[in-house]
Amino acid sequence: MNLADSYKMVRRRTEDICSHLQTEDYVVQPIGDVSPPKWHIGHTTWFFETFILKPYFMGYQEYDPNYNYVFNSYYETVGARVIRTDRGNLSRPTVLDVYRYREYVDNAIYKFLGQDVSPEIEELFILGLNHEEQHQELLYYDIKYILGHNPLFPAYNPQYASPVLEEQEGWLSMPEGIYEIGHQGSDFCFDNELNRHKVYLNDYQISTKLVTNAEYLAFVDAGGYQDFRYWHAEAWDWVKTNEVKAPLYWHNVDSEWHTYTFRGLEPLHLHDSVMHISYYEAYAYASWKGMRLPTEFEWEAAASQFSWGTRWEWTESAYLPYPGFSKAPGAIGEYNGKFMVSQKVLRGASEATPPGHSRLTYRNFFHPNLRWHFTGIRLAQ
Amino acid sequence: MNLADSYKMVRRRTEDICSHLQTEDYVVQPIGDVSPPKWHIGHTTWFFETFILKPYFMGYQEYDPNYNYVFNSYYETVGARVIRTDRGNLSRPTVLDVYRYREYVDNAIYKFLGQDVSPEIEELFILGLNHEEQHQELLYYDIKYILGHNPLFPAYNPQYASPVLEEQEGWLSMPEGIYEIGHQGSDFCFDNELNRHKVYLNDYQISTKLVTNAEYLAFVDAGGYQDFRYWHAEAWDWVKTNEVKAPLYWHNVDSEWHTYTFRGLEPLHLHDSVMHISYYEAYAYASWKGMRLPTEFEWEAAASQFSWGTRWEWTESAYLPYPGFSKAPGAIGEYNGKFMVSQKVLRGASEATPPGHSRLTYRNFFHPNLRWHFTGIRLAQ
Amino acid sequence: MNLADSYKMVRRRTEDICSHLQTEDYVVQPIGDVSPPKWHIGHTTWFFETFILKPYFMGYQEYDPNYNYVFNSYYETVGARVIRTDRGNLSRPTVLDVYRYREYVDNAIYKFLGQDVSPEIEELFILGLNHEEQHQELLYYDIKYILGHNPLFPAYNPQYASPVLEEQEGWLSMPEGIYEIGHQGSDFCFDNELNRHKVYLNDYQISTKLVTNAEYLAFVDAGGYQDFRYWHAEAWDWVKTNEVKAPLYWHNVDSEWHTYTFRGLEPLHLHDSVMHISYYEAYAYASWKGMRLPTEFEWEAAASQFSWGTRWEWTESAYLPYPGFSKAPGAIGEYNGKFMVSQKVLRGASEATPPGHSRLTYRNFFHPNLRWHFTGIRLAQ
Amino acid sequence: MNLADSYKMVRRRTEDICSHLQTEDYVVQPIGDVSPPKWHIGHTTWFFETFILKPYFMGYQEYDPNYNYVFNSYYETVGARVIRTDRGNLSRPTVLDVYRYREYVDNAIYKFLGQDVSPEIEELFILGLNHEEQHQELLYYDIKYILGHNPLFPAYNPQYASPVLEEQEGWLSMPEGIYEIGHQGSDFCFDNELNRHKVYLNDYQISTKLVTNAEYLAFVDAGGYQDFRYWHAEAWDWVKTNEVKAPLYWHNVDSEWHTYTFRGLEPLHLHDSVMHISYYEAYAYASWKGMRLPTEFEWEAAASQFSWGTRWEWTESAYLPYPGFSKAPGAIGEYNGKFMVSQKVLRGASEATPPGHSRLTYRNFFHPNLRWHFTGIRLAQ
Ligand SMILES: [Fe+3]
Ligand SMILES: [Fe+3]
Ligand SMILES: [Fe+3]
Ligand SMILES: [Fe+3]
Repeated sequence: MNLADSYKMVRRRTEDICSHLQTEDYVVQPIGDVSPPKWHIGHTTWFFETFILKPYFMGYQEYDPNYNYVFNSYYETVGARVIRTDRGNLSRPTVLDVYRYREYVDNAIYKFLGQDVSPEIEELFILGLNHEEQHQELLYYDIKYILGHNPLFPAYNPQYASPVLEEQEGWLSMPEGIYEIGHQGSDFCFDNELNRHKVYLNDYQISTKLVTNAEYLAFVDAGGYQDFRYWHAEAWDWVKTNEVKAPLYWHNVDSEWHTYTFRGLEPLHLHDSVMHISYYEAYAYASWKGMRLPTEFEWEAAASQFSWGTRWEWTESAYLPYPGFSKAPGAIGEYNGKFMVSQKVLRGASEATPPGHSRLTYRNFFHPNLRWHFTGIRLAQ
Repeated sequence: MNLADSYKMVRRRTEDICSHLQTEDYVVQPIGDVSPPKWHIGHTTWFFETFILKPYFMGYQEYDPNYNYVFNSYYETVGARVIRTDRGNLSRPTVLDVYRYREYVDNAIYKFLGQDVSPEIEELFILGLNHEEQHQELLYYDIKYILGHNPLFPAYNPQYASPVLEEQEGWLSMPEGIYEIGHQGSDFCFDNELNRHKVYLNDYQISTKLVTNAEYLAFVDAGGYQDFRYWHAEAWDWVKTNEVKAPLYWHNVDSEWHTYTFRGLEPLHLHDSVMHISYYEAYAYASWKGMRLPTEFEWEAAASQFSWGTRWEWTESAYLPYPGFSKAPGAIGEYNGKFMVSQKVLRGASEATPPGHSRLTYRNFFHPNLRWHFTGIRLAQ
Repeated sequence: MNLADSYKMVRRRTEDICSHLQTEDYVVQPIGDVSPPKWHIGHTTWFFETFILKPYFMGYQEYDPNYNYVFNSYYETVGARVIRTDRGNLSRPTVLDVYRYREYVDNAIYKFLGQDVSPEIEELFILGLNHEEQHQELLYYDIKYILGHNPLFPAYNPQYASPVLEEQEGWLSMPEGIYEIGHQGSDFCFDNELNRHKVYLNDYQISTKLVTNAEYLAFVDAGGYQDFRYWHAEAWDWVKTNEVKAPLYWHNVDSEWHTYTFRGLEPLHLHDSVMHISYYEAYAYASWKGMRLPTEFEWEAAASQFSWGTRWEWTESAYLPYPGFSKAPGAIGEYNGKFMVSQKVLRGASEATPPGHSRLTYRNFFHPNLRWHFTGIRLAQ
Repeated sequence: MNLADSYKMVRRRTEDICSHLQTEDYVVQPIGDVSPPKWHIGHTTWFFETFILKPYFMGYQEYDPNYNYVFNSYYETVGARVIRTDRGNLSRPTVLDVYRYREYVDNAIYKFLGQDVSPEIEELFILGLNHEEQHQELLYYDIKYILGHNPLFPAYNPQYASPVLEEQEGWLSMPEGIYEIGHQGSDFCFDNELNRHKVYLNDYQISTKLVTNAEYLAFVDAGGYQDFRYWHAEAWDWVKTNEVKAPLYWHNVDSEWHTYTFRGLEPLHLHDSVMHISYYEAYAYASWKGMRLPTEFEWEAAASQFSWGTRWEWTESAYLPYPGFSKAPGAIGEYNGKFMVSQKVLRGASEATPPGHSRLTYRNFFHPNLRWHFTGIRLAQ
């Protein structure tokens, strides 16, 4: 596929995700981690305007200088930014304004792509499209949070179908030795997947099946949320401060567990993989089972031998640079490196991940207390 | 005017105020004191449904039981309520949903008013309409806050014309003696205006003109915000914690003072009455002038002899019950009495007050640190 | 008594109050409102050094310039101050250091009083002694809080005897009319007791007896803390946020109510006047009884006809300036005026008030949520 | 040395550290991370009483059941605990009380050690003594914080002599390959040093000298604290929120850098190793130099070839379990494992570490924002 086609396809997918929304759904920000959907629409557009059109497209006329202030995220290099928690207070630009901005930039991009572009710019495009795919996934998280925390529990899409993973129950035994970890080859990868390097792993076993709702419910029913022994000290504070008693989106209605899905509130599907648990909970569950979570290296070494892709799988690994990691210069260099402290790595992909976006070496990362993203548990021992 | 006509007129005025809004403007809640406009639209409707239709209109079918949860405000009697600061997180019901709810209730009301209604119910109607007028005023405050805190400073209505008060500069001398304070007669008044009672006042003088922007600017330029001597202790903490340097909506752009108006950002109009100052600032300004604010009794005794009505005027009085004050039974009784601590009384009316809503005995009240409402200063000595 | 004798007597009383303390008790500050006893010892000393010795005693050598920073309280005029909540973090100056400072200043004062002093300075002395008496009362409050919030519930003084008020149960009827309020004569009073002025009062009745623990317990047992109808809106938030269920220092031990006293934890004395309730609770209790609290004017007009003096009595009045009130110039002027917002007036005196310190026109004031001071309830109707 | 002698020596060392304190210094807790010295005295005693005397010494009479509540720390297994930030509010038990408790327990221990003890109990003793040594180090941190944040900057000990490390400037080159990491042999180690296991390391270079104050000052002078590019995202928030401009205890007095030492405030010693920097600052400094921090594995593999022991050295490694790590059962098992999230590993030892307490495989850990402990920087590349 040529660049213009790729661009069109990725951009359209973002709009498709939003096609189920009401105007009002685009605007709100119930918690700091969630961004209003219209912000994602504008921010992904701002990325192409800022990093491609403004520096490289001669004669390009910026759409509105104020938009840099509104749609910048964490790129300190590029100027002042709206404090993150303020995004949900902005009624303007309106959704229509933002789509107009999007169309304006898209048109300029298509004009720009009518010319030949250098490999360096092509690389920026590929980064921009991967960036947009990451925001597509965030859109799913944020939309679910916005609708799933509304007292009316509206459906996002009554026809939404969750993908089902073909899994085999069992344990995969991996032998002690040296393994190679990290991206190889010339395909696109994020900077955090490099350098490819050797790690030494002891013997280990890793489950070929994700933990199910039924299995996790046994932990809930056994009083797992009331027994500090399974939890990290900071996790136990989190449980008590937030009165956590079950995964996010679980609701006990008349003594029956329900869960909010994109189709609305439904009885808990016991055979589904558990979803929306924090690292703290994943660890506590594993602890209660007398097992543990795999490291990201154990996961990568084994993952070609089991099914994955519907849940981001918490690992025991902290998000740290690989040997030889170095930041790219400039704003692009802020992409990943600045987050390499206090976060945990997740591996795999989720049902919200765009097709083809993830890979065996992909490193996702979040703080250990978060759970509005589509997470799950795979055990190791 | 008959009740149905009054009802129609008041209800339509609410919608007129909102006619300048974009859908997105209806949804956001930048601070806890501000409510999303769609909440006002629904809440004023909920009031008629809850206090008139449900108890008195036989066979009335509640529109949606969940709406009680969403549009209740501070009426503890009537059931659980959405935590006030959460209102801005709710994208549903949508603006269209809320207007449908409004239309549904209006139609029921018109049907109900086709019958004769008892004087007791008529009283409830009058309370409901006065309640709605109060929310009309709040709508102006909240809309101004939402648009005036947007980095794009959008106009609410480019044709908005501020009323001008015909004032005479001077001091009115009032003699020592007994004065009667509080509402008299059989017209509608709020419970907090009763009982009418005697107060003893010393000689005093009260200004016949509100403080202007030019006069207030002199205080700003004289370093009034940097000198603790003019401020209450808690006010000085407020100034320092919030780095307050001027009234709300004042912006120093390239060394020239501007102010956000309903028409957008404009250079400060020096002859206008100062607006959007807290009680703390009103007091500090008076202190700096070597004067003071009037009490609410001084204001009421003199107000028929000067012009008022474009700014709510902070008084020195705390909001307390009059002799013989008693709460009405039930939810209606929660109307005013439960706020009679820690607030200051404001007298008069503002340019946002619906015509005919206020009167000489009207007691408005707010916490002393607030200033998103349309406040001003009248001096006494 | 001459000035030196008065000085000696007042100063010694402060030290007597502290004579029951361990060194460690002098140091801690469990909440912001409580000051460490050693701070009171130093601060009252600093007052005489700062306002008398340094300006008026030729050749006086300041003890330690750093102490101004440590022992200043809220006198912005006199320089930077230690943030109030930090006082409990300072282990130095030690208790011994502070008593040395106190002795040094006392010696200088006695030397100074060997000379004739002007009436102006005598007035400063009288203010300083009244100031110290106020801190004596605060010392009792703060010591009780420090020991009463210690899990070991240590006694302050096992021999401590609470004074008992001779009261007659009944209602005093006061006729409608004009009353004179405020201090009269040339004796010392605080600036907030002036000017004496006329107020107009309606007929009212005021109880000749304080509410007892038994009576208040009936409110607790009737579910008063669970029923929002008796509470102001902000009070109800306070009850729920702080899970308030009874007066401060009440502990339900094995289903029997106990209360911490200066002698340690004891079963609740049912005949004692209720103590350690906030204004919120006083109001809620009165509301539950279908009555109200008196205003400070009602109290002052009637108080010569009933017994008072063991509890500070919450009034319905906000703490506001009397007609003609004006601040003294300079730091002394910060004494009272800057607190005249958001506080409620208490009248009378408590068992912790130094003998002779209070009077019929004395106006004490605290925020409505506080209750570590020795408060009580007198009803009116 | 026999167990009783070891016990006596370690216990006495704790008391020696405190011998320079005034009673008041034992009591305060200026921030949550700092504990009052008397708490350390009591808590280390409580450890022996709780884990040895009560379960194993027949007929032992607990000193005071309330003390369990006061001196417990984070051992959830053993019952309720005083909220950590409340420790500084407790004036009782007094310092003398705590020393009496200590003497009582010591006497019981000596009696107990008159009998033969099983190897299992001996192990508990060794753990208890190591625990006490850790608190000795914390005592130094906390005392420095308490005195170093007092506006009088009192000396802890005017004769305090900082140890000097004999270091050679240069880079040690380490070859790629498999290294063994973790404790070996039968000597005491903490559970977090096990299991010994293989890691694969790439070529690396590690400095043989710690970064000096002079070198770090160059970073400060170059505007390192004003340039976000050197900092993690969360670190940059920390710098801005806390207005961090230099290491802890640095004070710019009349344009000359001073630092608080145990001897009081002194001009910065340029040749000393930099101290009291957070991980954030260590990382930012390394970033500015175009280098990085070593991992804990790189440190352990190389540390026998350079001098260390005066500063805890931040590593790039997160504090995670080694392969095969498992918690001990019961309260002892809470020792380390529950902290294995969100913390960074430090290696080496500091001038506050008791002699013989640390070793090559010792893993210290703290949150990345903390710096009241005695930290330093060693670079790698
Ligand atoms: Fe982004
Ligand atoms: Fe309302
Ligand atoms: Fe004072
Ligand atoms: Fe410990």
